[in-house]
Amino acid sequence: MSNASNRPHVVIVGAGFGGLAAAKRLAGRDVDVTLIDRRNHHVFQPLLYQVATAALSPADIAGPIRGIFSGASNVRVILDEVTGVDALRNGVQLESGAELRYDWLILATGARHSYFGHDQWSVYAPGLKSIDDALAIRRKVLLALERAETETDPRQRESLLTFVVIGAGPTGVEMAGAIAELARRSVSRDFRTITPHCSRVILVEAGERVLPSFSQELSEIAHRSLEQLGVEVRLQAPVSDLGDGYACCGSQLIFAKTVIWAAGVQASPAAEWLKADCDRAGRVFVENDLRVPGLRNVFAIGDTASASGGGGRALPAVAPVAKQQGRFVAELILGRRSGEFLYRGFGHLATIGRSRAVIDMGSLKISGFFAWLVWSVAHVWFLIGFRNRIVVTMSWLWSYLTYHRNARLITGEIVGVPPRSHATPLERKCA
Amino acid sequence: MSNASNRPHVVIVGAGFGGLAAAKRLAGRDVDVTLIDRRNHHVFQPLLYQVATAALSPADIAGPIRGIFSGASNVRVILDEVTGVDALRNGVQLESGAELRYDWLILATGARHSYFGHDQWSVYAPGLKSIDDALAIRRKVLLALERAETETDPRQRESLLTFVVIGAGPTGVEMAGAIAELARRSVSRDFRTITPHCSRVILVEAGERVLPSFSQELSEIAHRSLEQLGVEVRLQAPVSDLGDGYACCGSQLIFAKTVIWAAGVQASPAAEWLKADCDRAGRVFVENDLRVPGLRNVFAIGDTASASGGGGRALPAVAPVAKQQGRFVAELILGRRSGEFLYRGFGHLATIGRSRAVIDMGSLKISGFFAWLVWSVAHVWFLIGFRNRIVVTMSWLWSYLTYHRNARLITGEIVGVPPRSHATPLERKCA
Repeated sequence: MSNASNRPHVVIVGAGFGGLAAAKRLAGRDVDVTLIDRRNHHVFQPLLYQVATAALSPADIAGPIRGIFSGASNVRVILDEVTGVDALRNGVQLESGAELRYDWLILATGARHSYFGHDQWSVYAPGLKSIDDALAIRRKVLLALERAETETDPRQRESLLTFVVIGAGPTGVEMAGAIAELARRSVSRDFRTITPHCSRVILVEAGERVLPSFSQELSEIAHRSLEQLGVEVRLQAPVSDLGDGYACCGSQLIFAKTVIWAAGVQASPAAEWLKADCDRAGRVFVENDLRVPGLRNVFAIGDTASASGGGGRALPAVAPVAKQQGRFVAELILGRRSGEFLYRGFGHLATIGRSRAVIDMGSLKISGFFAWLVWSVAHVWFLIGFRNRIVVTMSWLWSYLTYHRNARLITGEIVGVPPRSHATPLERKCA
Repeated sequence: MSNASNRPHVVIVGAGFGGLAAAKRLAGRDVDVTLIDRRNHHVFQPLLYQVATAALSPADIAGPIRGIFSGASNVRVILDEVTGVDALRNGVQLESGAELRYDWLILATGARHSYFGHDQWSVYAPGLKSIDDALAIRRKVLLALERAETETDPRQRESLLTFVVIGAGPTGVEMAGAIAELARRSVSRDFRTITPHCSRVILVEAGERVLPSFSQELSEIAHRSLEQLGVEVRLQAPVSDLGDGYACCGSQLIFAKTVIWAAGVQASPAAEWLKADCDRAGRVFVENDLRVPGLRNVFAIGDTASASGGGGRALPAVAPVAKQQGRFVAELILGRRSGEFLYRGFGHLATIGRSRAVIDMGSLKISGFFAWLVWSVAHVWFLIGFRNRIVVTMSWLWSYLTYHRNARLITGEIVGVPPRSHATPLERKCA
């Protein structure tokens, strides 16, 4: 596939926050854009945990990429997967066998979970990066509650009603808070044998405090809020082993049928494609203007890149960084900007349950209900599409007023509900 | 598992329209009810085709069964699958290994698609009975469009853009109309190489007219409406063979990557469990009061039963029949009613696309936009849950005004987009 017009051809790999922002900035301009993603939809990742905990439906937080660019005739969207880049020949190889030639290449391929070298853990502790991940977690959590309802063996029942979240960054804190509300409050009316105090939600963190990227003060507020929701917080408890129905955290062995991974990420293989230098998480070291060193027409942005953005430390892997980088690179290509990328940070947000949040904007720190309102408005505002905004606002309002969770559907394979009272895994010592 | 109280124990198998209606009527009464389903949600089946064609999300038309009975402490909901019934011992065996004892048993297990003895066709032509079926069809239809966008081989492209629906009952007619709108109109703005006239939707029927349960007149109106939407209708064209990428209908061989089955149903194995007499579709012949012959405390209702309902012919497999039978059996058990079940039919409804429908109420026949309004109001009204009603109304209004389809997400496996230009299946003669 090549480009018929004489305009420069910009190939963007990945339609996450970074790739989408770049494509939007290039839409309607004097370039041809090809946007490649292996999914047909953009996902608003900050709300994925709400799909995983049955508060929202997938379509509430995701929209078809094509729909975003229907009006931009210079943007072509392709559903395909990149398998390699040939930087010498300016070519991108696709899974389908086709090859795309580019004048400019923007790599915005994002990241996956990292199990720190223990990939076998992924079977037992799914992470949360895609709609399919969220649906898999939703199925796991809801099935555990269903099975607990009829389980008669007390030890099995306890492990069905124990939910472990590993990693106390924003995603882990939000997941733990939402599961606590789902398992301890929302469902209590619907089950006959499960009462709010039957279930345990345990948030496990290797470091010294929850939300390590926030100030010490907000960290403590978040910690207390979690405990008020009934979440048990275990600090300085690195995971040493994980398996079917158990997790070893610090010196403790926890029996739990549901374990969720929110502990680390690993960049996509963009660095391998380019044979470029990268950090331990696989993120490509880029120059001040986000170019890949030695390649004048290749950029890496978002979670794919390790950039300093004007400060000393590497920029965090959050949506605003990716979006600003996407826009910066687009303007660089259009010749409307030059020089180095500078990140304008607005702070960190995290929510804990249905009426508390913490916001760290440097000098300004907010927590509690007002912070939650700010968080809600900000998230609804940034959601793509007019309809989604209304639907999400209404879903939230409805859940808020009634504690109902409407998306509590178990889809996919349920066939073969396993027989009750499996043999309990052998007692074992943690390392 | 047995029943601790001294009240009669009613076991209901299946939470479709029939089972749900029975359980609702028994809720709060002086009986203990156990409602078993192999899914955790009730599905509003008449709108499943809208999930399959990306107009609605699963949670818009399905709700957790537990949520419906949160307030009814005498109703217990169990997620499990029935594997057999021992009518001598009044026992129901479950997949999980448990056994339930009943005083009354209501079998409302519904039906699956029937491929008339060609079960191997199910791989190539999925049917539409569950949320998972609908999501599988949605994935198939949307992926075909995505692949057509970049396909360069004209024959492959044609077969990717040909959609065949088999069976012109209400489901087939609704599917064909909705796919025509999706493939010919809704998506045309979003793709660069697919224009409205690229795609073909073919509705295939073995009989002499579409909607055979409707009057001749409405049948003809529906036929014309389908053609106006761009659907090709092929009558008297029974399917003789189906495979990867083709369907033989009548004397014609159609190359199509997407084939959808809406042609026949087969009742669940309830008749086998009871070793009872059944019709060709597997539906248990029941007595006038819906009892299974020879068993005073076992009822079969809805698609599980072949009942006459006061008329001569067997009742149709539609929601109102199942609901009325569920309520009748519940009242029989409560001793508030006796005698035979009489069906009060309100007529048939079917919709064709986004502003046409046909309604056959015997002496009253309506078609066109007004019929579509009646259809919309009726369907939204019968949807469970206040929130769903609002969300569905809004989704429809939004789609209606904008032609947008917001649920166009391809979830599940996409990995490994197959290489373009597979070998075209060998030309072959139809039998």
